Amino acid sequence: MKKPVAQLKPSGIITLTTDFGYHDTFIGQMKGVILSINKKAKIIDITHHITPFCIDEASNAVSSFYKYYPEGTIHLVIVDPGVGYDREGVLIKWQNQFFIGPDNGVFTSILMKAPAETIIALTNRKYFNPKISNTFHGRDIFAPVSAWLSKGISIFEFGKPLDNLAKLNIELPNKSCDMIIGHIQHIDNFGNLFTNIDEELLKDRNFVIIINNKEIKPVSTYKEAKNKGISCLINSSGYLELFFYEGNCANLTKLKKGDTISVRLK
Amino acid sequence: MKKPVAQLKPSGIITLTTDFGYHDTFIGQMKGVILSINKKAKIIDITHHITPFCIDEASNAVSSFYKYYPEGTIHLVIVDPGVGYDREGVLIKWQNQFFIGPDNGVFTSILMKAPAETIIALTNRKYFNPKISNTFHGRDIFAPVSAWLSKGISIFEFGKPLDNLAKLNIELPNKSCDMIIGHIQHIDNFGNLFTNIDEELLKDRNFVIIINNKEIKPVSTYKEAKNKGISCLINSSGYLELFFYEGNCANLTKLKKGDTISVRLK
Amino acid sequence: MKKPVAQLKPSGIITLTTDFGYHDTFIGQMKGVILSINKKAKIIDITHHITPFCIDEASNAVSSFYKYYPEGTIHLVIVDPGVGYDREGVLIKWQNQFFIGPDNGVFTSILMKAPAETIIALTNRKYFNPKISNTFHGRDIFAPVSAWLSKGISIFEFGKPLDNLAKLNIELPNKSCDMIIGHIQHIDNFGNLFTNIDEELLKDRNFVIIINNKEIKPVSTYKEAKNKGISCLINSSGYLELFFYEGNCANLTKLKKGDTISVRLK
Repeated sequence: MKKPVAQLKPSGIITLTTDFGYHDTFIGQMKGVILSINKKAKIIDITHHITPFCIDEASNAVSSFYKYYPEGTIHLVIVDPGVGYDREGVLIKWQNQFFIGPDNGVFTSILMKAPAETIIALTNRKYFNPKISNTFHGRDIFAPVSAWLSKGISIFEFGKPLDNLAKLNIELPNKSCDMIIGHIQHIDNFGNLFTNIDEELLKDRNFVIIINNKEIKPVSTYKEAKNKGISCLINSSGYLELFFYEGNCANLTKLKKGDTISVRLK
Repeated sequence: MKKPVAQLKPSGIITLTTDFGYHDTFIGQMKGVILSINKKAKIIDITHHITPFCIDEASNAVSSFYKYYPEGTIHLVIVDPGVGYDREGVLIKWQNQFFIGPDNGVFTSILMKAPAETIIALTNRKYFNPKISNTFHGRDIFAPVSAWLSKGISIFEFGKPLDNLAKLNIELPNKSCDMIIGHIQHIDNFGNLFTNIDEELLKDRNFVIIINNKEIKPVSTYKEAKNKGISCLINSSGYLELFFYEGNCANLTKLKKGDTISVRLK
Repeated sequence: MKKPVAQLKPSGIITLTTDFGYHDTFIGQMKGVILSINKKAKIIDITHHITPFCIDEASNAVSSFYKYYPEGTIHLVIVDPGVGYDREGVLIKWQNQFFIGPDNGVFTSILMKAPAETIIALTNRKYFNPKISNTFHGRDIFAPVSAWLSKGISIFEFGKPLDNLAKLNIELPNKSCDMIIGHIQHIDNFGNLFTNIDEELLKDRNFVIIINNKEIKPVSTYKEAKNKGISCLINSSGYLELFFYEGNCANLTKLKKGDTISVRLK
């Protein structure tokens, strides 16, 4: 049940999803800003290994984890090549959670599920760092706003309401009578290939993936495919995934992000 | 002193050791599940860079850090190529700490020190996520079980007692009258080569490592080996280690995990 | 305003900056030691990807993040090739914050801003681990000292006052009438090249960077340089930085740490 924004209490948890990496001190600077405002904030690193400048990757990441967090959690999502130039910073209330980041499409994946209930353009400098750089709004705007929000400041205090958010053009799978044409959307740490083909498209249907004129039948666990080469299943995020049992499917097949995947329904 | 399981109170700390890497949101999903059940849980990342599918590496990791944690700490250890297929999920009480993970050998290193005092096969779905995937029990079973356990639920609530746990076949060093033959067990971030030769085997003895017919004498600190090429010492985990002062011993020697190391006692 | 050391209360936050990497359990061991002494400590990873043995990189990191933390925060900085051999371990009170690490130059960057107000050589074994290895003082000395300090133990309890600290020889930019000659000090996750040329040197002046006889004019945001090749700006840390919009400047220019950068004032 969606709560009116006035009744949504912050959980005290702030998650971070960025392309800042783990080598530099950018994340350390942001955490210092947050803790200087709210020493009790619980900061959770989702990942800082989003490919640099890759807005769609950040967007896909968001829709994979938000739902596991308690209501009132604040999610910072910062992949921001346009920082300081021509995009707004925004604070969104969506499905009993808060999202903060640049208005450049990083929230596309959740906005495709449902519209944002409240959008605020971040304009109230009272909640920013005293000195604001042109190149690191993560530290100077998004971090302090998240910390003040986590302390219970009303979202309407942070700026002026907006009607719309930037969205990326997302290529959805193409479904004809017995074929679905999708693509590889993500390659995980194991080399598993996540497609953009949602389990809803395959519900109650038998199907095979076609690769090099070979039919690959789905299994339900990884180990069922032991010694069977490339295989596929519906993964824990609800998407069709290609994998190789105890192997790196991306390396073995040379398939890469964006490559087409064809599914035949039976 | 070992406490009876009924008297062992959770410390509120949950540690994570996995092969999930830092690029994906798997860890972020697990942390959300834990915090949704116990917002006060203190989650500590040990490492998510275990080599994918490498159960023995996870097992070795566990025995290197558990003892530094307060009693009642919960250690999640998840390297799980057989997820959803043919292994149980288990919860173990061992030496005043709790361990949770797949029953596939990830706990071998601690079980070699002492048997588990209580083993529970995780079967009570009341403490699992409502929807359980076949491919991510870390999120759907182990994370929620750890969170409920950290809130004080009795370990006997989570399933049925088991008598035995899976163990890997571990090759121990071979000791004859004046020789010890071991192998390289781990290569650390500095390129230092950890052998499986425990300091107990070398206690009160003079010794040298033999490499390419050269004798390498042990030192007691890294810097003693400045400008002296490859050297060795007993490291902070109590194992014989080969190193190169301010250099990367693995790269310089081309030695790798599993390679044989010979020690002559004097 | 600087507080006398007796009035500086610990914030409960302990930050970690090391060259230990994310593959091993070294950090996990240290966190266990800290939490066993002070379960309420808030441990923040700044980075563990300092280049192994690279003391100047750790020193530069420290000055980039300390100021964002609340007063009374404890910063552990551990790049320590001389561990156990010929350097002291120290605890410093500087500008309302505490710093702990080896006395080998890791604190040079902050000491160039102002002298340490109090320096303590860590000698009181009461606050160390019971067993002290020769190769991992991070776990056996610095971690427990930080935890006890975070609980309010007076810094004078940990050892004896020292007058001086080791400092690295830092090459500062060379300024003549209309030229500044500096060098590349850091390459960040995006391939941006941080120079050691501070904005103070460029204040109220027009300037260009000279590379291959070409003049590169500064911009104020990254995106202004879209489709313009290599560009420069004053970055969020207050240093002159070379970058390439949505590209990796280090890879594209082959410039590397230590390379000379020439600026002409206009």
